[in-house]
Amino acid sequence: MIVLLTDFGWQDPYVGQVKAVLAEAVPGKPVIDLLHAVPDFNAHAGAHLLDALKSAFPAGAVFLCVVDPGVGGPRQALVAEADGQWFVGPDNGLLSIAAGRASTTRYWRIAWQPETLSDSFHGRDQFAPIAAALAGGQFPEDRLEPVDAPEVRFDLAELPRIIFIDHYGNAWTGIRGGVLSDVATLEVKGKALERKAVFHEAGKGDAFWYVNSSGMAEIAVNRGSAAAQLGLKVGDLVRLPTASASH
Amino acid sequence: MIVLLTDFGWQDPYVGQVKAVLAEAVPGKPVIDLLHAVPDFNAHAGAHLLDALKSAFPAGAVFLCVVDPGVGGPRQALVAEADGQWFVGPDNGLLSIAAGRASTTRYWRIAWQPETLSDSFHGRDQFAPIAAALAGGQFPEDRLEPVDAPEVRFDLAELPRIIFIDHYGNAWTGIRGGVLSDVATLEVKGKALERKAVFHEAGKGDAFWYVNSSGMAEIAVNRGSAAAQLGLKVGDLVRLPTASASH
Amino acid sequence: MIVLLTDFGWQDPYVGQVKAVLAEAVPGKPVIDLLHAVPDFNAHAGAHLLDALKSAFPAGAVFLCVVDPGVGGPRQALVAEADGQWFVGPDNGLLSIAAGRASTTRYWRIAWQPETLSDSFHGRDQFAPIAAALAGGQFPEDRLEPVDAPEVRFDLAELPRIIFIDHYGNAWTGIRGGVLSDVATLEVKGKALERKAVFHEAGKGDAFWYVNSSGMAEIAVNRGSAAAQLGLKVGDLVRLPTASASH
Repeated sequence: MIVLLTDFGWQDPYVGQVKAVLAEAVPGKPVIDLLHAVPDFNAHAGAHLLDALKSAFPAGAVFLCVVDPGVGGPRQALVAEADGQWFVGPDNGLLSIAAGRASTTRYWRIAWQPETLSDSFHGRDQFAPIAAALAGGQFPEDRLEPVDAPEVRFDLAELPRIIFIDHYGNAWTGIRGGVLSDVATLEVKGKALERKAVFHEAGKGDAFWYVNSSGMAEIAVNRGSAAAQLGLKVGDLVRLPTASASH
Repeated sequence: MIVLLTDFGWQDPYVGQVKAVLAEAVPGKPVIDLLHAVPDFNAHAGAHLLDALKSAFPAGAVFLCVVDPGVGGPRQALVAEADGQWFVGPDNGLLSIAAGRASTTRYWRIAWQPETLSDSFHGRDQFAPIAAALAGGQFPEDRLEPVDAPEVRFDLAELPRIIFIDHYGNAWTGIRGGVLSDVATLEVKGKALERKAVFHEAGKGDAFWYVNSSGMAEIAVNRGSAAAQLGLKVGDLVRLPTASASH
Repeated sequence: MIVLLTDFGWQDPYVGQVKAVLAEAVPGKPVIDLLHAVPDFNAHAGAHLLDALKSAFPAGAVFLCVVDPGVGGPRQALVAEADGQWFVGPDNGLLSIAAGRASTTRYWRIAWQPETLSDSFHGRDQFAPIAAALAGGQFPEDRLEPVDAPEVRFDLAELPRIIFIDHYGNAWTGIRGGVLSDVATLEVKGKALERKAVFHEAGKGDAFWYVNSSGMAEIAVNRGSAAAQLGLKVGDLVRLPTASASH
């Protein structure tokens, strides 16, 4: 199974071009569009989203990840194997949370480029052929070079910011629900929000936070848009209760 | 064939997570994205859209339907077999028009939950495994309990409202074209619109109504947006000619 | 492989209905969503996009192309075989650039209609079955009639206009990079833009043009939106340097 996580959007021709490469290289292999709406150019948000979403997929899954504003520049390209799943993408931090939080991780630098490599679309030209080889069960030894670690790594701690806003207006934070297990309130834009277990516990139109189906703390409004109601956007700070406990 | 009809939108990771479950359970089974833009939380519009769209699919198709604002609450989960097609989703009315208008229908309550059931994503955790079993040809007898009828049923009559606006700005009504066969005008927002057989019968920029390719009365503008031009939104009332014939 | 290029958008049910036809007719055949955001009703932009994008696909690929504002009217339906790739769509110019620029091209008129042909969705009812037959390796001889040329053909020269704006705000022109190989500047909205090889050569927020990964001249801003920054929309004129060299 190949899983796509990118900032390509849906309306553009980029996803289809990647899929053409995959369909040629490994015909019949399932390709799952997980997320093409990582906030544009935002590898940091993408890294936390990838980590949150990876657990829904089986061992052996190959994640082809492209949030790559530095394409064509000096950044390296990376493969990571983390707890049995594979990750292919730019070495700009995008893979570093999912890989860094795993129990066992190995890393390789992509030491290969195709005969014709565009300057702006390595996802199609370089990452997709590598992902296809991995998904096809052929470790491309001659095209990878083991390395000890990525060049760029993000902090493995929680990211107390909004990292994604879904089309309902629910705002994902970069905070895993597990670290907040006994917490009553989260603060965003000066508003303290209570925790609910499920949507229908909140009154219609009331804002709250809960642990979403991917395990992340999420700010929501029952049958409404938290983003519109609270004026939220990606990058907004979320205040953790430990920070406010310092009086 | 598994057919998805949801209000998940395209940009979010929810469709991909459902597809991961299906790809694991029934590898190689075709999964068709029919509609992920059912108006948010609007099971009533979704019910009429599902009924309008189902006929393009063969007997044996399994529709996995998720418009589920009451998820995590007391609503039941439902399976229906209607004229040879299968429907899986929440028991909130969403399946009730497609099932209720069929010649023969059978219903089951989903009497099973997975070991880990999220509070907010039963589409992935509970409905998808059931849909996969049905699509794989294995009726999951031990997880379903026959019932006589859904708990929530919508009126089977036409819904004289806008139920969907497509990206061109065409506005679908919940009225089947067949019931309007001899009708000259529909009224919306105080405007009487004439019937045309095809787009190019109308002048460029002219509003009209016609029976669309799924058999529903639709308000359109030739090479323009009916929604923008007439100020239409989902839920707006459409006046049926029988109502205006009461002078 | 069947490749879809349409103006259907992603949120509507039209793509899924086409895929249902294909899945029934040629089960297991890969279907690639290349582009569903051809500017609405704009066969001219679509024709240049199709030509730019076709080269990422192998010989034998069948392009099912639908930008069809004249559906239900007198326009013909067309099949073209051009340098080993197949194209199916309306005879309104949409296929004419890809076919006309090929070394060898053959054309057929679709001389068949299904028992039930909707007035507004020939993509599903007429083009999809023909595309499926071609992709399945069965030339549908009894349903096609050889013709010498399409009825509608666009000029094969470069189109010096914006033909597509992607979700980052990058603006594709209808000018192939090859014809501009030695050119320093392009002019749009009165602004002269320099050529860069890659994004990171430009300062953050600077506008420039480059040859994109599909070989087209594209106007871009490093980590920003060219469309927003320069006020670009589809159809805007791009001044070619040869035109400005006439002082």
